[in-house]
Amino acid sequence: MIFMKNLAILGSTGSIGISTLDVVSRHPDRFRVVALAAGKNSRLLEAQIRRFRPQTVALADENAARELRARCREFPLEILGGMEGLIRVASHPDATLVVSAIVGAAGLVPTLSAIRAGKAVALANKETLVMAGELVVREAASHGATLIPVDSEHSAVFQALAGQRRDRVARVVLTASGGPFADLPLARLQAVTPQEALKHPNWKMGPKITVDSATLMNKGLEVMEAHWFFDLPAEQIHVLLHPQSIVHSLVEFVDGSVLAQMGVPDMRGPIAYALAYPDRLEGASPRLDLRTVGPLTFQEPDRERFPCLDLAYEALRMGGSMPAALNAANEVAVEAFLHERIGFMDIPRVVEAIMTRHRCTPIASLDHVLSVDRWARAEAQEQIKARVSA
Amino acid sequence: MIFMKNLAILGSTGSIGISTLDVVSRHPDRFRVVALAAGKNSRLLEAQIRRFRPQTVALADENAARELRARCREFPLEILGGMEGLIRVASHPDATLVVSAIVGAAGLVPTLSAIRAGKAVALANKETLVMAGELVVREAASHGATLIPVDSEHSAVFQALAGQRRDRVARVVLTASGGPFADLPLARLQAVTPQEALKHPNWKMGPKITVDSATLMNKGLEVMEAHWFFDLPAEQIHVLLHPQSIVHSLVEFVDGSVLAQMGVPDMRGPIAYALAYPDRLEGASPRLDLRTVGPLTFQEPDRERFPCLDLAYEALRMGGSMPAALNAANEVAVEAFLHERIGFMDIPRVVEAIMTRHRCTPIASLDHVLSVDRWARAEAQEQIKARVSA
Repeated sequence: MIFMKNLAILGSTGSIGISTLDVVSRHPDRFRVVALAAGKNSRLLEAQIRRFRPQTVALADENAARELRARCREFPLEILGGMEGLIRVASHPDATLVVSAIVGAAGLVPTLSAIRAGKAVALANKETLVMAGELVVREAASHGATLIPVDSEHSAVFQALAGQRRDRVARVVLTASGGPFADLPLARLQAVTPQEALKHPNWKMGPKITVDSATLMNKGLEVMEAHWFFDLPAEQIHVLLHPQSIVHSLVEFVDGSVLAQMGVPDMRGPIAYALAYPDRLEGASPRLDLRTVGPLTFQEPDRERFPCLDLAYEALRMGGSMPAALNAANEVAVEAFLHERIGFMDIPRVVEAIMTRHRCTPIASLDHVLSVDRWARAEAQEQIKARVSA
Repeated sequence: MIFMKNLAILGSTGSIGISTLDVVSRHPDRFRVVALAAGKNSRLLEAQIRRFRPQTVALADENAARELRARCREFPLEILGGMEGLIRVASHPDATLVVSAIVGAAGLVPTLSAIRAGKAVALANKETLVMAGELVVREAASHGATLIPVDSEHSAVFQALAGQRRDRVARVVLTASGGPFADLPLARLQAVTPQEALKHPNWKMGPKITVDSATLMNKGLEVMEAHWFFDLPAEQIHVLLHPQSIVHSLVEFVDGSVLAQMGVPDMRGPIAYALAYPDRLEGASPRLDLRTVGPLTFQEPDRERFPCLDLAYEALRMGGSMPAALNAANEVAVEAFLHERIGFMDIPRVVEAIMTRHRCTPIASLDHVLSVDRWARAEAQEQIKARVSA
């Protein structure tokens, strides 16, 4: 007996959103799309409307929403704009599963709406847990919302933990490819270009997360996510470089036994798992042929090459508002790097400067998180201006 | 809340038995030894009696049992001899968990007694499922006995399957180190000595199983075991060479996701898992450090080098009494090789000759299995004599 799941997808025109709809299109007997939300890509959202016939769509950009309304008059469709529109999609009454795939801090508010509406949430948006983990976990518990990871690393841990006793977990090891610069001489790192940073060796992802993979900030954010997803302290979450990206992550138990989840690096695998959980979809990702992938290797990440990783651990240990400040500073710094305003190694420098200036306090509310986020962004912009003019 | 488990150990003086008692001795709050059985090593069994104070012990060898009785007069202890003694230990009324670790076909009858007594059985004796899988699985179901694997490969699959939907398993991959001769020129294989065959690169095991690891017959027997343990057809059970013996086996699901169980090659890991299941024992095996184990590699086994593997698959596909015939012929051939009566590559030749001569029939009863076993042993002896005198 298969139940139809009604999906709302936040970030449908991004990398994860597109892959999600690819999985959905191959399983029309299992999934129905009831609502879609995106940022400003009205052309692609229009194509998705024609293909999946949702009841409601939203664009964060009000102008793009108006434009879309003009082009989609023939559809019996609700087209909304702005944050209110995103929230309406996230809490759509017919949606049973909300895929949260908006990139960056913009995903936090709509995701929290889905959680407060008691939805099952397939969580690809890292910032939800990074910025407001304590709040989110508490709200999920009190509204009966379930969180299912979409990141390949957390999906790996989630799969390996199924049926295992949580109190017998010794630690979790998140793997990281090391990105395109894992073997570059340290002295050359500062001068790498955005084009070089965007060439990820194994995974096809959006630009922000691809740069985060090159600095290992992505892994640092994942350490924080793992902390909230799996209720583990920083000391029980480790990171190993694994350039082949075949072992997506591992769980080590107190008896010395390790369970690893493996697969080809293809986001449709973890996306399909999150959509179908606790079931599995036939052929969701290509078969892994261990005879052809070459030797699998693991090594400790070089802390000097990847200072973002230690910054993330430090923010997690400090807790409270510090991870939100780190995250905001990093988003601004990555954006500046992508526009060639700062060098690659300036990203951790900007983040560290903001962390040093931030007065860390316990998280009181969503508004509090958002005000920390605004403050850190403004400070990071100042830092970058100072660097550029220096 | 921890419940004390009362153990009966069949084969307490062998490699698995000794490791089992090593685990037990470190957890006196969890395990009590109520009965021990061995073959003829009365000296070691006496030491185990003094250390673990069982209520009942048995030696298969009647003379050794008499000798032991003379030496252990001061203990309030039942000392039995012969197959009846082994059966008494296997079905001891106070035992809740029976560890079946007698090597070879001799383990079948007592293990089946434990199953018929409705015990939980930690199964290290491969022959129980290889020779009489259909019978054993049927009896376990009707007597409410549970079978828990002890082999590292099946323990790996068992651990990876916990909490997973069985109907979503695409296949199981058993890993094999390839033994000491994986890279030896083919032409030199026939002339290898027992001493060379007994040098296993990764695992410390008894002599019979170590030779079986060098021929890959051990893996072939494990394929048959996996068939019965996990209810999978031969086509869904694969074997890959993995010289590092770190990944103990893998489960591939229909969605392309793979769960692998890993650990250092130390039998105390899977033994402790079988003893404590569904719990896990702190520090059962040393921690795996993936940074130091070196690259992990996987390759298809060379069928010409390891003809025993194909013979085992063939016996499994033919079913009925064929696996029992293969197993008996292999035991006799390995024994002859260890006594330098035949060469290494004669082992598969003897097995194949017996399989060719055997008239495969469905398994009707335990007596039927035992008569096939006797027939195949006698035939194998004849084959070997003919080879030696030729």
